[in-house]
Order: sequence, then C-alpha cells, then structure tokens
Amino acid sequence: MRYAVIMAGGVGSRFWPESRSAKPKQFLNLLGERSMIQMTVDRIRSRFTPDRILVVTNATYVALVREQLPDLPAENIIGEPVAKNTAPCVALAARILRLRDADATMLVLPADHHIARPEVFLSVVDAAFEQAEAGTDLVTIGITPHRPETGYGYIQADERATERRGAFAAHRVKAFAEKPDLDTALRFLASGDFLWNSGMFIWRADTVEAEFARLLPDMHVLAQALPDRADPGFTTAVDTFYRSVNSISIDYGIMEKAGHVRVVPGDFGWSDVGSWTAVHELGRKDPAGNVDRSAGALFIGSANCLVKTSSDRFVALVGLDGIALVETDDTLMVCRLDAAQDVKKVVDALKDSPKDHLR
Amino acid sequence: MRYAVIMAGGVGSRFWPESRSAKPKQFLNLLGERSMIQMTVDRIRSRFTPDRILVVTNATYVALVREQLPDLPAENIIGEPVAKNTAPCVALAARILRLRDADATMLVLPADHHIARPEVFLSVVDAAFEQAEAGTDLVTIGITPHRPETGYGYIQADERATERRGAFAAHRVKAFAEKPDLDTALRFLASGDFLWNSGMFIWRADTVEAEFARLLPDMHVLAQALPDRADPGFTTAVDTFYRSVNSISIDYGIMEKAGHVRVVPGDFGWSDVGSWTAVHELGRKDPAGNVDRSAGALFIGSANCLVKTSSDRFVALVGLDGIALVETDDTLMVCRLDAAQDVKKVVDALKDSPKDHLR
Repeated sequence: MRYAVIMAGGVGSRFWPESRSAKPKQFLNLLGERSMIQMTVDRIRSRFTPDRILVVTNATYVALVREQLPDLPAENIIGEPVAKNTAPCVALAARILRLRDADATMLVLPADHHIARPEVFLSVVDAAFEQAEAGTDLVTIGITPHRPETGYGYIQADERATERRGAFAAHRVKAFAEKPDLDTALRFLASGDFLWNSGMFIWRADTVEAEFARLLPDMHVLAQALPDRADPGFTTAVDTFYRSVNSISIDYGIMEKAGHVRVVPGDFGWSDVGSWTAVHELGRKDPAGNVDRSAGALFIGSANCLVKTSSDRFVALVGLDGIALVETDDTLMVCRLDAAQDVKKVVDALKDSPKDHLR
Repeated sequence: MRYAVIMAGGVGSRFWPESRSAKPKQFLNLLGERSMIQMTVDRIRSRFTPDRILVVTNATYVALVREQLPDLPAENIIGEPVAKNTAPCVALAARILRLRDADATMLVLPADHHIARPEVFLSVVDAAFEQAEAGTDLVTIGITPHRPETGYGYIQADERATERRGAFAAHRVKAFAEKPDLDTALRFLASGDFLWNSGMFIWRADTVEAEFARLLPDMHVLAQALPDRADPGFTTAVDTFYRSVNSISIDYGIMEKAGHVRVVPGDFGWSDVGSWTAVHELGRKDPAGNVDRSAGALFIGSANCLVKTSSDRFVALVGLDGIALVETDDTLMVCRLDAAQDVKKVVDALKDSPKDHLR
C-alpha cells in the first residue's frame, strides 16, 4: 500500500512576524485561506485516505497539527522531541510503516511548499511510485528549472539511463549539487540536464531501510528498536531514538551515497515559498503588481507591493515600489521585498532580548 | 497692550492618517508630547498672559481648542462658522481687540508651525512690536532662507530702507513673491534680500483696520458691525459676518497692496511642518537617520526612516531607506518620504467613499 509522510518539523524565521517559534511557516495561511500543511494534505487527498497520511513534526507542534488536520488519526501525528534534520524522520516513518504493512511504499513530502498545478504533480507522483515499486530505486522528484535560481539545490539527471513511466521519465541521478552561485546556476540551466531538488522522495519502505542499514547503520539499528505505534512504550522509545541519533539530512546521509537513485522530472509550478518575496510572487496581483491580503488597501503611486494584515485596519501605501507590509496583533513589519531574506535578522535580534516572546 | 491672535482654522490633509477632518494638524502631537497649537501657545507664554491670547478656529474645533488649552478663557476662543481664508479672521480679531483696548497691538500667528529657537523668535517679535507701535507700519516676520525652498512664498526686503530695532532690522518690503520654481528660488537665495514668508504679522489693531477700510472696505464695514465679545448677540453676528464676507487671504487682500509694510528678518529654526518629511527632518535621529516615535522599533539595514505608532506594537523595518510608517487605531500608512505630499491623495480618495469616516 502507498503512504504519505509529511515532514513538518521546520522552525523557519523568514516569515516573521506572522511566523513565530510557536507557529512556524507550515501552519500559516500564507497563500490563501488554508495553511501550508493543510494545502499539502489537501493536494494528496485523492491518492491517500487520512489513515495513510503520517505527519512528523516537532513535539511542540503536535497539538497544532491535530487542530489543523482534524481528520487525520491522532496516532498518525508523530512528535519529534528534538530536531535532528530529515534522516531520522525518514528512518522513523519507514519503521512505523513497515511494522504496519511489510509492503509499504512511501511518498515523503515537505509540509510547506506550494504547487500551482496539483494534478500534474499527482501524475508525477504516480509515475514515481510505479518506478519505486518496480524495483529497488530511491526516487526523487526534480523540478524543471525556469530560471538560474541560486536558492535551490540541483540534481543532475543522466538522460541516457532512463526508464519510461507513462508520460514521465525516471532518469538515473548522476550527481547532487549544492546551491550554486549565479554563474554555475546559469550553466546548470543551459545544460538542460539539471533539475531543482524538491526534497520530495518516493520509495519502498524496505528499500530505504536497506539503504539506512548500509549507509547509516547506527541510526538503522536504533530505528529497528522502535516498537509499533500502538505500543504503550512508543513515545518513550521515540524520545530515546531522537536523543541517540546524529543530526543529518536524508540528502546527505542517504541520497548522495545510495546506488539506485532516480529522478522523475516534473513541471507543476513548484515553489519552496522561501520568503515574503514568494508570497508576493504567488499572490493575485492588481494591474500594478500589488498583492492585497488586507480588508482592502489603497495603493497611491505604488507598485509591486504586498500588504498582509491580521485586522480590518485600512491600509494606504503611497509612492512605494517592491515593499511588503505585514501586520500581526502585536507587531508591524515593513521590508523591501528584495531584502526579505533579512527578515530572519529581526528574529535573531529578538532572541534572548526583552522582546523574546515576539519571535 | 499687546495681544496674540492664533489662527487655527486649518484643515490640512497631509498628515493623514494621524490628521483627520475632525482633528487636523494643529491639534496633533507631531513633534513631541504637546500638540502644534499647544507648542505655539507655550512659546509665547512669557510675553502674553492667557487672557491676552485669542484663538480663531473653525467652530467645529472650539471644543478641541478648549480641551488642549484649558487655561485660555473660553471667550478667547472664537469659532468661524465657515472657512473664509485669513483676512476675515484678522478683521474679526482686530475688531474684538479694539473694542476691548483702543490701543491694542497684535501678533498674528499660525497655529501649526515649528520654531527650534523660541528665545530668538521672541526677540524678533519684540522688535517687530516696537516697530509696529512706533508708527503705522504693517510688520511681518521674514525667515532667513538656508536653501532654495520651492514650497514657501518669499518677501523681498529693501535693505536701503531700514530702521533698527535693537539687534534687529525692520526693512521696507519691496515685493511679495509666490512659491517659486527652483531656478527662481536659487536666484532668490543668491540675491540675499529675499526672505521666506512666515505668515506671522505684527501691527496696531487701528493700523490694520485703517488698511481694511482702504483695501477691503466691504469687509471692514461688516467687521465694524460686530458687537463686543461679551454681547449676547456676538455669535450670531460672527455667523452673519462670515457668511457675508469674501474668502481672501491677508497676504493678497492687505499685505501685497498696503503702503507701509516692513519685514523683520529672523533666523530661529522655523518650519511650516508641511508633511511627514518635516516630521522626519525635525525628529531626533539615530546614527542611521531613523526617527522612532514608537515603543521601540528595530531597524535592520534601514536608514532615514520615520516610525510613528499609536499603540505599543513592536515595529521592525528591514532594508528600507527614506520610508515613513504611521499607525493609528484604525489605519496603517506607509509612504516614501519624498512622496509625502501625495498623502493628501489618500484623503481625496476616501472622500465620499464607503471609508469617508477615515479621512
């Protein structure tokens, strides 16, 4: 059977002031009336019944996940006592699913990405499942790049080693590349065989367990000690597991070293929604390029701006270009959209200050 | 005896959202803990006891003036039923003062200007009173210009026709000039004999009445029909007066046509505080040039900005230069400071809209 595992442990600070340490990005309605994690689940509902969707999040967010996804069985929401990157999360999920279903295959998804064309996405996922179920490949989804983006990692596909899966292709992966500089990104884009690393994976649970056994054997042994989800000792065992394992990403720990890695390219309007700039880019714009997420803002001589308020206050922008204004109940933030990555510096400044509660 | 007449009828919209039609600029704490009109009165308290300070304002603001200036006798606050520019206000004030004191001299002041060096200002006022009391001159105060300002009117002084008044000079006025273009303003500045028109006047009440009789005879006749302030028919008579007179400024109606006009130059850090730009310029700046009028804003990579809030919300600005953020209980306004004059367009847009109550 096919299962989905949603990784929702992020604690990003680039959406301050809307994101807070108690409510990070995946739980915010950044792009509509549903939160990022709700939209992530909504997107796959046609393929997975709620009982086959697992969410792994920080223990402090378990209540929030239950609140936002009330139709998921409570036992499908797993709290991590400490953040140890993505490899332990995958090892844990694979173990839970294998105890339940020896034949489990799993789709691993970040909780906080945007997909403009979900039907195309699902077709790519279907093809990736077929590829993973046909053998012992670790399959990832690579995004067809449309610009020389320096904010994403890349995957190089070997287009001479390809298996067809319906309308899609599963290429053998030649290499993974870190976030490139602009010159390198331009070369990647021109080459035609580099794809954006989406952080989405599809594999049989037993296949990925075998790779853990080979590449991260200590973590594998610890994972195999975990009891069934229904076992009364489960939570304590998860605590022990997380406190014992090293912090390492699934990309670095497994994907870059594994043998049978394939990538299925997809082009479905994907974005990792990395900052307020992306919220502006993905928002519905007026003819001047302004995105209004307030009770009705007035833009005087202003273009390419983003307004997002938590109240019904009236907002007016005068003579501005490329500026974001974000209001919450206790804060106001104004930033230049092309400096939006520096919003996290606000959070850094608040940390351990008298205003620590605002981060 | 000397009296002060404060003209407080303005309805300016360039300080939206803090200024509203129900509470315009002169009643706002734009530059500190006291409103503009309070600061105007505070500045002259050493020269005028409260009973010798008259405020002329729109009838709808009388209660606000009483609230902000509780030590002024209630009968010294006169409400104009309609706005008819400054000449009727001066004619009314001269009439009231003459009925009370045949020998009255009067200082006429706008309610909403800023003066950085009030002691110098008072010395200039003293000299101007001496000049006005010595004969039949209409005296105005001209500001020594420090830049080629295109937003002010100018006064050309005839420095060959000068009377000394202590440390100051009273020059005969050669000409009044409207707001110039930049080339003209540069010529004015280079010439050395042009001063900024401050809109402050000093004269004997009987002198200015004689000029009204000669230059605005209809208005003069109507003013002479006004009874004493204590008369029970006073308010009705003021209503009749305002509904009968033409709308005309004291500059255009009297000053530009009168014979004996003198200007006393002063250099006391004067500003008409025309927009949020002036509030930024006059505010206390951090080393990056930011003015913080909030509970404590955080400026990340931001310079030359102004933050003014009505609540204790925490404000963060990221990557901005020359931007103002103004918060009130029901609005938020962000503008580029060098487009601050366009803030009045917000008020224009709100007028007769469903949000008319916000202007």
